[in-house]
Amino acid sequence: MCRFLAWSGAPRYLDELVLNQEQSLVAQSRNALIGKTAINADGFGLAWYSDRNNPCFYKDTHPAWSDANLKQLTHHTRSGLFLAHVRASTGTATSRNNCHPFGYGRWCFMHNGQAGGHDAIRQQLDGMIPASLYGDRLGATESEAIFLIALGEGLDQNPIAAMARAVARVESLSRDSGALPFMRFAACWSDGERLFAARYASDRHAPSLFYRKCKTGIIISSEPLDADNGEWIEIAAGTAIETQGTVLTSHPFAPGVAATSP
Amino acid sequence: MCRFLAWSGAPRYLDELVLNQEQSLVAQSRNALIGKTAINADGFGLAWYSDRNNPCFYKDTHPAWSDANLKQLTHHTRSGLFLAHVRASTGTATSRNNCHPFGYGRWCFMHNGQAGGHDAIRQQLDGMIPASLYGDRLGATESEAIFLIALGEGLDQNPIAAMARAVARVESLSRDSGALPFMRFAACWSDGERLFAARYASDRHAPSLFYRKCKTGIIISSEPLDADNGEWIEIAAGTAIETQGTVLTSHPFAPGVAATSP
Amino acid sequence: MCRFLAWSGAPRYLDELVLNQEQSLVAQSRNALIGKTAINADGFGLAWYSDRNNPCFYKDTHPAWSDANLKQLTHHTRSGLFLAHVRASTGTATSRNNCHPFGYGRWCFMHNGQAGGHDAIRQQLDGMIPASLYGDRLGATESEAIFLIALGEGLDQNPIAAMARAVARVESLSRDSGALPFMRFAACWSDGERLFAARYASDRHAPSLFYRKCKTGIIISSEPLDADNGEWIEIAAGTAIETQGTVLTSHPFAPGVAATSP
Amino acid sequence: MCRFLAWSGAPRYLDELVLNQEQSLVAQSRNALIGKTAINADGFGLAWYSDRNNPCFYKDTHPAWSDANLKQLTHHTRSGLFLAHVRASTGTATSRNNCHPFGYGRWCFMHNGQAGGHDAIRQQLDGMIPASLYGDRLGATESEAIFLIALGEGLDQNPIAAMARAVARVESLSRDSGALPFMRFAACWSDGERLFAARYASDRHAPSLFYRKCKTGIIISSEPLDADNGEWIEIAAGTAIETQGTVLTSHPFAPGVAATSP
Repeated sequence: MCRFLAWSGAPRYLDELVLNQEQSLVAQSRNALIGKTAINADGFGLAWYSDRNNPCFYKDTHPAWSDANLKQLTHHTRSGLFLAHVRASTGTATSRNNCHPFGYGRWCFMHNGQAGGHDAIRQQLDGMIPASLYGDRLGATESEAIFLIALGEGLDQNPIAAMARAVARVESLSRDSGALPFMRFAACWSDGERLFAARYASDRHAPSLFYRKCKTGIIISSEPLDADNGEWIEIAAGTAIETQGTVLTSHPFAPGVAATSP
Repeated sequence: MCRFLAWSGAPRYLDELVLNQEQSLVAQSRNALIGKTAINADGFGLAWYSDRNNPCFYKDTHPAWSDANLKQLTHHTRSGLFLAHVRASTGTATSRNNCHPFGYGRWCFMHNGQAGGHDAIRQQLDGMIPASLYGDRLGATESEAIFLIALGEGLDQNPIAAMARAVARVESLSRDSGALPFMRFAACWSDGERLFAARYASDRHAPSLFYRKCKTGIIISSEPLDADNGEWIEIAAGTAIETQGTVLTSHPFAPGVAATSP
Repeated sequence: MCRFLAWSGAPRYLDELVLNQEQSLVAQSRNALIGKTAINADGFGLAWYSDRNNPCFYKDTHPAWSDANLKQLTHHTRSGLFLAHVRASTGTATSRNNCHPFGYGRWCFMHNGQAGGHDAIRQQLDGMIPASLYGDRLGATESEAIFLIALGEGLDQNPIAAMARAVARVESLSRDSGALPFMRFAACWSDGERLFAARYASDRHAPSLFYRKCKTGIIISSEPLDADNGEWIEIAAGTAIETQGTVLTSHPFAPGVAATSP
Repeated sequence: MCRFLAWSGAPRYLDELVLNQEQSLVAQSRNALIGKTAINADGFGLAWYSDRNNPCFYKDTHPAWSDANLKQLTHHTRSGLFLAHVRASTGTATSRNNCHPFGYGRWCFMHNGQAGGHDAIRQQLDGMIPASLYGDRLGATESEAIFLIALGEGLDQNPIAAMARAVARVESLSRDSGALPFMRFAACWSDGERLFAARYASDRHAPSLFYRKCKTGIIISSEPLDADNGEWIEIAAGTAIETQGTVLTSHPFAPGVAATSP
């Protein structure tokens, strides 16, 4: 399990959310309050949209709390759309290539969750990645595989439906392997214009996911960043949200249904 | 605060204590049960005596729990005298040079504790290190400084008294700075023949330190490695122990008194 | 391209070959004299056989010349069979998982070379790895893939023929992709009893590979470790050698022929 | 010895100089053409002025050529004043704390050179650092010490004279130690408004230093970034330059004289 947050809205310094909150993402890396894994210290990553076309990534393998670069970069970088992630490995190695967010062109993606039987299904998972995208398979996580499969499913055309189809395909592998839980999934992805998030599980235990509307934008986060709990709205399992600037819309996120569609 | 353990006795594989115990040192790196800091993930280090004259060191900056090299090396290395340490930084950077144990010739040393006013006294502390040993000052921790000062105080001739004098000198700096606590100190050091440990504080809060006699040797540890609590003996504050093979002797460790001696 | 060396014979300290030679492996990491790439500083690795059943690995991503742990471990470790490798990436990331030697059970393997069209054939390469071994696919190099494919081809039963079949299968992928060179291959592998090395190319440019018989054993190396050139024997392209202690036998290594066998 | 470059002028992307030149700084990290050390791969660092008050730092210990973060950050970051450095250690460890540029408040500083007898004078050097700045002594390099001493000599009031006095003081330590060369010094420093560079040696071998005037600013570099050699002007030994935007002024840089002033 991992923790993540994202911002869509007026440009702001990254450290305002990543570091300078009561339960900031870096605080969550030492002491997450929700979820099975309190310590999320197996690497971290940032992606922010600059005035270049593609997102800028910074990733490293140390705990987020001790990385001097992270403090520097988040203090000096301002963006209207950014994603940040702290990782707790569920088995694969601590390496930069296994750190979220993952990127392809304009897109980036980060994830918290698991698919049952990961070791048993990994080779099939790798086989599901479109051939033209396999050169972009840098690490060994199922998270990166889901992202590349979603790109192949048409993320550019239909960001939510493509992601649902990718999740459905991976869940079906997991079901075939017979290892529970088949799919627990919370994720956030963006093309630099819109920010998407989805929450889903094949059982009753979808990973936590919240959002909060602020005056100048919207925060999406694995857990509330402060004790103003009334301000934080839990995203229901089976739901995706889409934000563009400060406008938020909600959609069903139903991988199971999508999976049976042609 | 940090956590450490050491072994003196018949040669055994390091992973038997470092990894394969209920509350092994690596378990303590994620979840220490005693002390203020549950997470000790700002680097780690090993020192073991091989058939060469000097100890062999392995140190790195990642959390001990995710380091594949640590698993490999402790699984394949057997020694009759070894020390292992997981670090929680109290301010100085996460770098190999700040990881314990520290070494000089036959000697190695590791430490858990703090001296008040570290930033204020650091330059004086560095000035206390004997000129001939300053080239061996690799990092910025007060721990390494105490070790080098102790070498200058005659660690070779009188390992316990020299350490007490070094601690007294550093405590006096801290007292002059006025920052509490003046000195909290638990440490372990060895010349390859004998293994020493001491526990002391200028207040009532000496860092935890235990030992356990086994059939083939003696374990010293910041906290019990298992629930056989009856087997683990707490070292009293103001006490040093010395082990040679399986023989253990106890000594007073009174830096304050030593400090007033000529 | 990379550089490597291995030792089979009487136990000796690893630093005698890895560090303390005129053109030691660490010297080659800064300044290789043969081959296209003078700098081999994208990580390194060691594997040695201890008194445990399996080899012990130490790998890291820094240049070999600046790694304090490498100096310590090679100075204190003695073994009768060890392999050491310094890496020059041909594209894949600098990460521990991409550092040689790779291991499985008793076996370890290291490699210098390339297969044309790596990016284009990577997914097929991953698909060639036996399903039961895919959980051991940790990185993204073709080297590790060749090793896992060779295990599937029967490395345990026939170490040289199985390796030739694996190389042939990868070469055939490369030929289908049309990207030159189809296969350049120098490698070393061991089961802890025997040490194997092979040199081969689909063109006239097989990577360099030498051996030298010493009183107490045999060194295999990408380039001579000293200027006693008369002592260093170049392994001919299309040849494998097998050493057991100080006994050396030579075999043809002809992936092309093997590839056409049923 | 090390290599560095700096830019003062209109905002531009860092990768234009750090990566995308014939003999870019990253090219110099593999293959410096001037100076004793062709390989500068013991860490690197960037400092750029953002719209915050202080410079932003990014440093890491890997070779610059293999760092994915460096490519990302320099591609997405634009600044009108930035410094970049690749390090070849002359003895101290490869650690982030030993990577240039060093910072204090608005100031940052980077250096290429050496003072004779470093190990012998290190403790005295540390003693020269003003007490109030010793908490900012993070690493063990003489470079960082020179910077902190210069701050104490009044870098804010007189940036060039204060640096000359600091260099003179360190040179005098080196002269007392008797180890040649007493001082070789090329450096670059900035307060975010002005960019300074100086070149000096106590013998005839001052480290190389060049500048080039472009339409929108000035590049300072250890060696020319391209073959337009007519455009690159060598800074004479004993000279400092000061740039503010595109305006460049030249000053004598004479540590020896300054050293004898009261």
